[in-house]
Amino acid sequence: MHIRVINPNTTASMTTAIGACASAVAGPDVVVEAVSPVFGPESIESHVDEALAVPGVLARVAEGEEAGVDGYVVACFGDPGVHAARELARGPVVGIAEAGMRAATYLGRRFSVVTTLQRTVPGIEALTRSYGLADHCGGVHATEIGVVDLEHDPHARERTLELARVALTADGSDVLVLGCAGMTDFAAWLGDELGVPVVDGVAAATTTVVGLVAMGLGTSKAGEFAAPRAKRVSGSWADVDLRLPAP
Amino acid sequence: MHIRVINPNTTASMTTAIGACASAVAGPDVVVEAVSPVFGPESIESHVDEALAVPGVLARVAEGEEAGVDGYVVACFGDPGVHAARELARGPVVGIAEAGMRAATYLGRRFSVVTTLQRTVPGIEALTRSYGLADHCGGVHATEIGVVDLEHDPHARERTLELARVALTADGSDVLVLGCAGMTDFAAWLGDELGVPVVDGVAAATTTVVGLVAMGLGTSKAGEFAAPRAKRVSGSWADVDLRLPAP
Amino acid sequence: MHIRVINPNTTASMTTAIGACASAVAGPDVVVEAVSPVFGPESIESHVDEALAVPGVLARVAEGEEAGVDGYVVACFGDPGVHAARELARGPVVGIAEAGMRAATYLGRRFSVVTTLQRTVPGIEALTRSYGLADHCGGVHATEIGVVDLEHDPHARERTLELARVALTADGSDVLVLGCAGMTDFAAWLGDELGVPVVDGVAAATTTVVGLVAMGLGTSKAGEFAAPRAKRVSGSWADVDLRLPAP
Amino acid sequence: MHIRVINPNTTASMTTAIGACASAVAGPDVVVEAVSPVFGPESIESHVDEALAVPGVLARVAEGEEAGVDGYVVACFGDPGVHAARELARGPVVGIAEAGMRAATYLGRRFSVVTTLQRTVPGIEALTRSYGLADHCGGVHATEIGVVDLEHDPHARERTLELARVALTADGSDVLVLGCAGMTDFAAWLGDELGVPVVDGVAAATTTVVGLVAMGLGTSKAGEFAAPRAKRVSGSWADVDLRLPAP
Amino acid sequence: MHIRVINPNTTASMTTAIGACASAVAGPDVVVEAVSPVFGPESIESHVDEALAVPGVLARVAEGEEAGVDGYVVACFGDPGVHAARELARGPVVGIAEAGMRAATYLGRRFSVVTTLQRTVPGIEALTRSYGLADHCGGVHATEIGVVDLEHDPHARERTLELARVALTADGSDVLVLGCAGMTDFAAWLGDELGVPVVDGVAAATTTVVGLVAMGLGTSKAGEFAAPRAKRVSGSWADVDLRLPAP
Amino acid sequence: MHIRVINPNTTASMTTAIGACASAVAGPDVVVEAVSPVFGPESIESHVDEALAVPGVLARVAEGEEAGVDGYVVACFGDPGVHAARELARGPVVGIAEAGMRAATYLGRRFSVVTTLQRTVPGIEALTRSYGLADHCGGVHATEIGVVDLEHDPHARERTLELARVALTADGSDVLVLGCAGMTDFAAWLGDELGVPVVDGVAAATTTVVGLVAMGLGTSKAGEFAAPRAKRVSGSWADVDLRLPAP
Repeated sequence: MHIRVINPNTTASMTTAIGACASAVAGPDVVVEAVSPVFGPESIESHVDEALAVPGVLARVAEGEEAGVDGYVVACFGDPGVHAARELARGPVVGIAEAGMRAATYLGRRFSVVTTLQRTVPGIEALTRSYGLADHCGGVHATEIGVVDLEHDPHARERTLELARVALTADGSDVLVLGCAGMTDFAAWLGDELGVPVVDGVAAATTTVVGLVAMGLGTSKAGEFAAPRAKRVSGSWADVDLRLPAP
Repeated sequence: MHIRVINPNTTASMTTAIGACASAVAGPDVVVEAVSPVFGPESIESHVDEALAVPGVLARVAEGEEAGVDGYVVACFGDPGVHAARELARGPVVGIAEAGMRAATYLGRRFSVVTTLQRTVPGIEALTRSYGLADHCGGVHATEIGVVDLEHDPHARERTLELARVALTADGSDVLVLGCAGMTDFAAWLGDELGVPVVDGVAAATTTVVGLVAMGLGTSKAGEFAAPRAKRVSGSWADVDLRLPAP
Repeated sequence: MHIRVINPNTTASMTTAIGACASAVAGPDVVVEAVSPVFGPESIESHVDEALAVPGVLARVAEGEEAGVDGYVVACFGDPGVHAARELARGPVVGIAEAGMRAATYLGRRFSVVTTLQRTVPGIEALTRSYGLADHCGGVHATEIGVVDLEHDPHARERTLELARVALTADGSDVLVLGCAGMTDFAAWLGDELGVPVVDGVAAATTTVVGLVAMGLGTSKAGEFAAPRAKRVSGSWADVDLRLPAP
Repeated sequence: MHIRVINPNTTASMTTAIGACASAVAGPDVVVEAVSPVFGPESIESHVDEALAVPGVLARVAEGEEAGVDGYVVACFGDPGVHAARELARGPVVGIAEAGMRAATYLGRRFSVVTTLQRTVPGIEALTRSYGLADHCGGVHATEIGVVDLEHDPHARERTLELARVALTADGSDVLVLGCAGMTDFAAWLGDELGVPVVDGVAAATTTVVGLVAMGLGTSKAGEFAAPRAKRVSGSWADVDLRLPAP
Repeated sequence: MHIRVINPNTTASMTTAIGACASAVAGPDVVVEAVSPVFGPESIESHVDEALAVPGVLARVAEGEEAGVDGYVVACFGDPGVHAARELARGPVVGIAEAGMRAATYLGRRFSVVTTLQRTVPGIEALTRSYGLADHCGGVHATEIGVVDLEHDPHARERTLELARVALTADGSDVLVLGCAGMTDFAAWLGDELGVPVVDGVAAATTTVVGLVAMGLGTSKAGEFAAPRAKRVSGSWADVDLRLPAP
Repeated sequence: MHIRVINPNTTASMTTAIGACASAVAGPDVVVEAVSPVFGPESIESHVDEALAVPGVLARVAEGEEAGVDGYVVACFGDPGVHAARELARGPVVGIAEAGMRAATYLGRRFSVVTTLQRTVPGIEALTRSYGLADHCGGVHATEIGVVDLEHDPHARERTLELARVALTADGSDVLVLGCAGMTDFAAWLGDELGVPVVDGVAAATTTVVGLVAMGLGTSKAGEFAAPRAKRVSGSWADVDLRLPAP
């Protein structure tokens, strides 16, 4: 079985960490390949970032289809491009927000999410509603540590732990969900410290895809997720300029 | 890894079929053990049947805990006793309705359920609401073939196929979910005939449990699903008489 | 008119108190009979407790049908076994959570619930959702005084009052609902102290059943709550062992 | 106990029938008094009709308070003026739509409503949502026989029966709710013909009010339904002219 | 284009302020006419106040139809009588609560409402649900300054500002909605002070009506909002007496 | 006032028609400018099409900000990129699905949508839920005439009319919403034929933006829609290849 885990941002060290996490849970018979888009932002913390990242994610799916990939994980907690990716893929495509939060519902009654920036919180809350999980989500909480800083900020782990403790109590939650693929490495340690199940969406999405492929199931091609119609695409992407400030 | 699949009814041939289905998707490193309660009805088609079956399901979990079982599947589409089983288990406990219907949401936009008796339909609809899946469920449809007759009725497969075809069209669904563990054997054939993903809840719950155990996750003991308090239990079960008619 | 009020736990003093409360509101023409199961736990504070109690509740309904009972109250705030009991009964079957919370909606805009243990709170919140009352429920609050201790703890009343005061203010509620049949005796006193309507579910369910019987209405036998099919039940309940710790 | 049943329209024969129905279920100790407003339309089949009727309904409540009335029924299936009436009343105020539909939920899983004019259907559907009953309501169906014609049209009963039959089957419902106080007299006959519980809201609201009063409960004065502030009212109602066409 | 803005209360100075606000946004080609009912309370702060005001609002619509008015604004944050007014009007009828809260959803993710009296809060919350806006509404907050005092209380502006600040932070909102037509004059100043969009419902409803009329659209007469049936209205409004206390 | 209407697809004739429609309702003082992206598909009928179109839409917003544009319409019924566009814009950004469906709720109780391809229906249904409009939407119906063919297919108008007729009756709707910007030209004619209000989202979004700008309101920069953080973007869009089939 061949699973492709797509990190939608272009920070290579994060792609490596995500790949290691996915491999650890995928089982010995599964080839896990972690990739980033050939184009896109270093992190995804806004709707604009998402819009920039999605075409590159889709290209990785299209490439994967030619390579015979059996299933895909989209490893960003906003699940960017998942619907479009399903149109391109034969196998299943699973986002880490959906898989992570669904996994939590098997382990307790209510989960809290800890994530990076406050500005992403309403979008995650909207995801809980569109996935039918709003009643299970006690709250979404932001450390205000950016995605890229998760690797570099020496206090990132401790601040995530502190926030998680506060969140679990305030929300009355019995499960924690990590709201960013960059937190993958914190999961086991947080679980030990907190005494509750801590769900890493990367692991959850990987085992979900592995399970679906083991069941012989892929994306339905009978409706919304059929291959897109062939059509004329005009102009050149090189001319698309969002006038974004340089870092 | 040791997974126990509990068929809540006492029809041994169904337990065998369920065990075979679960083994087929669990992977070579996983020991799958299929069991039935020592007491209970031959099929579960009413709330009374459920109430009779649940204590025996729980006893199988309690026994499993002593035997070091890592996770449990409850293999009846009403998910009977799942909440109580979580109180007794360290590992995850997953019902086939929840796992089957959630699996479907990764594969398409809308699923239809085909099940056995019409009288169980409102209960399944209520499950879709309590699991937050009502928007994804196009409809629940009954063949009016009882659970036990699924094995014996020579027309069971064909009637299930016919009903599924009608349901998918009427509901505008692109995925089918089998609404009874006794339909496990129909899944692959139905998928071939219908051209859409057909989800068998037994397989879905098994891969879900295997995935959660692979992630090192079990039931949260920090809230609702902590072990029950020790307490006095009076009287004898032998004196409980529901005055049900003999078959 | 003959109403049977079933206390699902086996604490006799609580059954007596519940019966007295129900009689007080049922009217002079109504025979109220309060009973406990012949088997079951002394209190219901977990899903396992519920699973153990329900068969005995159902046996009391089956017995009541032979005795010509006109309607039933299930007097535990989780409404355990109500759906199954409806399959066995001709007359109406009403749980105290549903009746208590619905009564509150006639008296004010938003109610708060005070109950016993925190671990039962998520289950009650789930009931508010399945009964369509989530928008009316400001919050569910636990005293952490166990069901049996309600009778014995000399501070039970005062702590319930204090918690109720805090809850009403925090939730912006104008009605209080008692979240345990064991609080029946507190209702009038709490109402005087708090200056808001205090709804005891036992009284609410009793008047609801009396009203439905007066209207000549019983459980519909045209769908989900028809009598269960006759079927083979295997094994012996005596062999069912949940390995629960002794108190 | 003194209960006032207010028929919001000014058709005296309907007031009489409603009073008889309420008396029949209220019990021998209860004085039931049926009244109409001193001003208002002969039937309520639009939002304008409701707006014209409500002040007169409220005046009947204000008058009732001076007379020591213990509780009120508002006997029109749109529950017009119920919130305002609660501000004026010490005792409970219950509308027949809310009470009728809630009663139905104790008797089966899903109810259908049969009512008079199609134009009132969306309003009733909105009520099912605001009362949290949308999941229980299979459908609302109109005979297109106006309220006043229910008494005079010789085919009214038969057409209601036919429509009810179709509705129950189409909706998969096991209970029928009568969607107009003018159908009170049809309830018992329809129940016999249909073989399912048929809920008349007038009876349901009456027993609900009687039950709440028996419990010693009235409208909460601690929030939204406190007595209105004293304030200046300008102008004269005699000058209000809606320019409605004469019949 | 001729738009009539109806202030449902009878405080003339408020009508003048509302008219000025509406004129300011309606555009030079639009005639805006602000009116009050010929009968009704000086402010609307309860359900009884609403019931008293609505007939006069409807009379202003009926009169407007004869005068060829193209569309109507109902300028009270409970949207009283809007459904009934639609039955009488050919053009569109828009309430300031619906328009104000909908406008807010275009400008941010979540809005807070500041309003006058706490007793009106539950009704506004119910409006957010019936308009499908509950997920966008972070909270509804009351200054406890009555409607009429908004003009006279020298601290009204400052207290509204303070409350708005607290509300935006507590609710995590990025937009403010003014929950009373009497706050119209505060909008610009509050926006400057708070640094978030502040939506005045009067302006929002006015531009909404102007837009709908510009599109050539009016109230649908094909269903619920068709003209009411002609019917007999009995009695005299002069005899309707709510026995309300004088101010 | 300067409004930019962005047609997210690259079919120039459709951009022209959309601009004409928007100009017709915007008022004489408003400069309406209709543009297409410099890169993207000729029509948007899948999630992949959307993903390809969004960057070009955003570039048109970024360019508009430099040109002092006051507000934006996104003229595709999936509202693609609206959230991201709000991050880039000071003024309001409104999608035609949200504006069109919200406009409909002012005019009647329930609307039906007619759109192009069946595969887009579930996405539109999901929009109705995320906008809180699901209770108002009677159904979404597809002509199976593709976006580009709306201009060329001689039967497009007639088939849209026929489908609309069926939809209004089947759904019990009193308003029609056009589910594609390419149907703009049909609106007036359909309204005449059908006798119900027919809402064109392009017109509705234009008047909504004009109204918001007239009120002095723009996108809140205090939360989710603040300008995106500056960050490193790697690689070149020219290397992104989705391997889509040529037309």
